[in-house]
Amino acid sequence: MPRSKGPRSATTGGRAPVPRRRARLDVEERRAQLIEVALTIFSGRAYDDVSIDDIALAAGISKGLLYHYYASKRELYVAALESAAQRLLEETSTDTSVPPALRVHLGLNAYLDFVERHRVAFVALMRGGIGSDHDVSRILEQTRRTFVERIVEDLPRVVDVPMAPLSPLLLVALKGYIGFVEAASISWAEDSSVPKERMVELLASMLLNTLATTARSS
Amino acid sequence: MPRSKGPRSATTGGRAPVPRRRARLDVEERRAQLIEVALTIFSGRAYDDVSIDDIALAAGISKGLLYHYYASKRELYVAALESAAQRLLEETSTDTSVPPALRVHLGLNAYLDFVERHRVAFVALMRGGIGSDHDVSRILEQTRRTFVERIVEDLPRVVDVPMAPLSPLLLVALKGYIGFVEAASISWAEDSSVPKERMVELLASMLLNTLATTARSS
Repeated sequence: MPRSKGPRSATTGGRAPVPRRRARLDVEERRAQLIEVALTIFSGRAYDDVSIDDIALAAGISKGLLYHYYASKRELYVAALESAAQRLLEETSTDTSVPPALRVHLGLNAYLDFVERHRVAFVALMRGGIGSDHDVSRILEQTRRTFVERIVEDLPRVVDVPMAPLSPLLLVALKGYIGFVEAASISWAEDSSVPKERMVELLASMLLNTLATTARSS
Repeated sequence: MPRSKGPRSATTGGRAPVPRRRARLDVEERRAQLIEVALTIFSGRAYDDVSIDDIALAAGISKGLLYHYYASKRELYVAALESAAQRLLEETSTDTSVPPALRVHLGLNAYLDFVERHRVAFVALMRGGIGSDHDVSRILEQTRRTFVERIVEDLPRVVDVPMAPLSPLLLVALKGYIGFVEAASISWAEDSSVPKERMVELLASMLLNTLATTARSS
């Protein structure tokens, strides 16, 4: 008997709008599917407002089966956050053949696109809504570090700003700049009366200001 | 019989290096004393590394008595944080008769003094180490808002920067600037190889940059 015709699993429940072949998803596919579902749900609602039942229902599986793949809501959230951070880094990555000023513009535009798509989750996460979690902190810090590294790698290509790269002051200032981008983006996500293009201009100007100020004071 | 000669309270324990008259402290005094103790302890160690026993021992009272004043470690932490935020705002407040540029310098210097004194607690708090707590978020947000309001109130006094005060762009940018100060301060608190005076210059320059950029793009 083909497995796709097997008896209706009790775990999928009567309401599940999901084809039965889902039951055959292997572990990796299932985890990827659950991360997608979690990303969609956590993007629109705060962590505390999402129950594991919501996620199981949306995924068309039982809570018990969900716990088989992720031991807790938090574990699934961390996996989804890791995936989201990876996407943010990919989406904001630009081709090194593009001139630096345009790369900054494209990268910031992609960053704000991302913020727009994950508005609620972004604000909640950045405000510490998910709470004390070393994994969450680690993912946030790693993402910030990658942004700083990208800027530093691009520095030799940024003309008209003489500087001593990698001075302690420059590194502190670039971390400050990432803080500027995050805080301004939170504010914008909560009340987006500023057009996105203006936000990109503001953030791009502030990056140049950061580099110029650091160069002057080095 | 004078109350100060009353029987030794079982709650103070044998080790308590505290005079027995402490037992007479009224509720308000006792809460203030506990906040002081909590501030000292939380300033040097991360929230998760401090136990309620540590605080009771340092305060020279029993854990039971401590719970009489604060229902939990978190409640005491929130009270201490509220007190710390109040002090930060007081210490960074400057006399309006002082010229704006000097006020900015003095205010930022006081801010970094505060960060230096509460290094561990500052980094842990800003990294979300205390976790998901609406009271903590509220205190942080209120403090940020007060800083933004102070800058906005001072704007008419800042010369050479024509601008449209209170435009949405300016407010987003000022929130971004507070994010810059916080993120740069976290980095500096973790590795203070940048002299404090350089930090003050950086943060002061970035404030002027923020105002100038916003004025240009308005």
